[in-house]
Amino acid sequence: MTTSDHIVKAYDDELNHLTFMIVSMGKKVDVQLDRIIEALSEGSVEKAKKVIDHDPEIDLLEKEIDTYAVRLIALRQPLATDLRNVISALKISAHLERMADYVVNVAKRTCSLGTKPLPHYITPIVRLIRSVQSMLRDVLDAYVQRDDQAAHRVWEQDTEVDESYNGFVRELLTYMMEDPRNITPCIHFLFIAKNIERLGDHITNIAEHIHYLIHGTLWTESRHT
Amino acid sequence: MTTSDHIVKAYDDELNHLTFMIVSMGKKVDVQLDRIIEALSEGSVEKAKKVIDHDPEIDLLEKEIDTYAVRLIALRQPLATDLRNVISALKISAHLERMADYVVNVAKRTCSLGTKPLPHYITPIVRLIRSVQSMLRDVLDAYVQRDDQAAHRVWEQDTEVDESYNGFVRELLTYMMEDPRNITPCIHFLFIAKNIERLGDHITNIAEHIHYLIHGTLWTESRHT
Repeated sequence: MTTSDHIVKAYDDELNHLTFMIVSMGKKVDVQLDRIIEALSEGSVEKAKKVIDHDPEIDLLEKEIDTYAVRLIALRQPLATDLRNVISALKISAHLERMADYVVNVAKRTCSLGTKPLPHYITPIVRLIRSVQSMLRDVLDAYVQRDDQAAHRVWEQDTEVDESYNGFVRELLTYMMEDPRNITPCIHFLFIAKNIERLGDHITNIAEHIHYLIHGTLWTESRHT
Repeated sequence: MTTSDHIVKAYDDELNHLTFMIVSMGKKVDVQLDRIIEALSEGSVEKAKKVIDHDPEIDLLEKEIDTYAVRLIALRQPLATDLRNVISALKISAHLERMADYVVNVAKRTCSLGTKPLPHYITPIVRLIRSVQSMLRDVLDAYVQRDDQAAHRVWEQDTEVDESYNGFVRELLTYMMEDPRNITPCIHFLFIAKNIERLGDHITNIAEHIHYLIHGTLWTESRHT
């Protein structure tokens, strides 16, 4: 093995490690979603607090990814696809960090609710979270495989999440109209649903970055604002 | 003038141009906030639609900043402070783009409201937007001046925005309890207020990036999730 091969090999390893760090971060967000489903379904303040306690790990991972990416740019001076790889990692880590923040917001709302929610509140929310989780897993796979078509499919899935969200909001409005005592829990669920809907938006942004890193161009259509 | 000086001069110009692009983008967000205040206060669907129409300009600026930053990394292979400058520009542009999206969300809500809101809804909202505008202007100044202390002051200002937001939410809850007919407009204002409160969060994130670009370290305290 020549020295040059060795350097190239180390460089490849570093780029792969960056992908690995992103996927680890994504998986931590996925686990947070599992945790929040449990906390919400049981109305468990204790479990919701665990979600909040785990958030700093994800923040730290973002910083680690940023530091690693910056070091990689400085040492390797990547070009073309390699540079896009590194830039995309910076952007995707920011989206994952923001997603984790939304899950924390849901956890805080769960603490405010403080009781086990009625099935007509919790069932649609859990369904919404499951849809987002499936999008997240698919987008992480698309990222690892550098699969543009798979990324585009994830991007399209967000329409379903938006529709479920809108349906649920309409339902909540009727509960509030029926009885003013429903207003406070419904407001919490409105914001919980909104936070989850935003997760879907961030996943579509990640899908867009996958397209960018593969092709160096951006999709012209815009999925959301 | 030697060739080397000339190259250094061109490189400095490029870094300055990046700062200039970020500030231009920030100013466009500021103008959008002026527009949304007008649209909201008058309940003007037409003016709200103008806010939505102007959003692609801001999206485009983000892409231009990203492209410029990536080109700068590829051509100049910046190190240390210069590299942090470029990385921060990538991160700050993402925050500004997201801020613009929140303003668009408010514009969409304004369209849904469709009428001139009552003073007890609009007065606190306008006050909230003005606070955020003042934070935005201060953070852009801090960015141009590379003034860490000024950035930290902006970061602290967000507490006031959060407090005003919480007060307004409590008010809205009482209106909803009083009369179910208030529920629909109040929900719109809840989300409008939430969007504006999020603007403040993004500005604190920008303040954090200013600190990072100056010192290469992160503030350890966390302003929000």
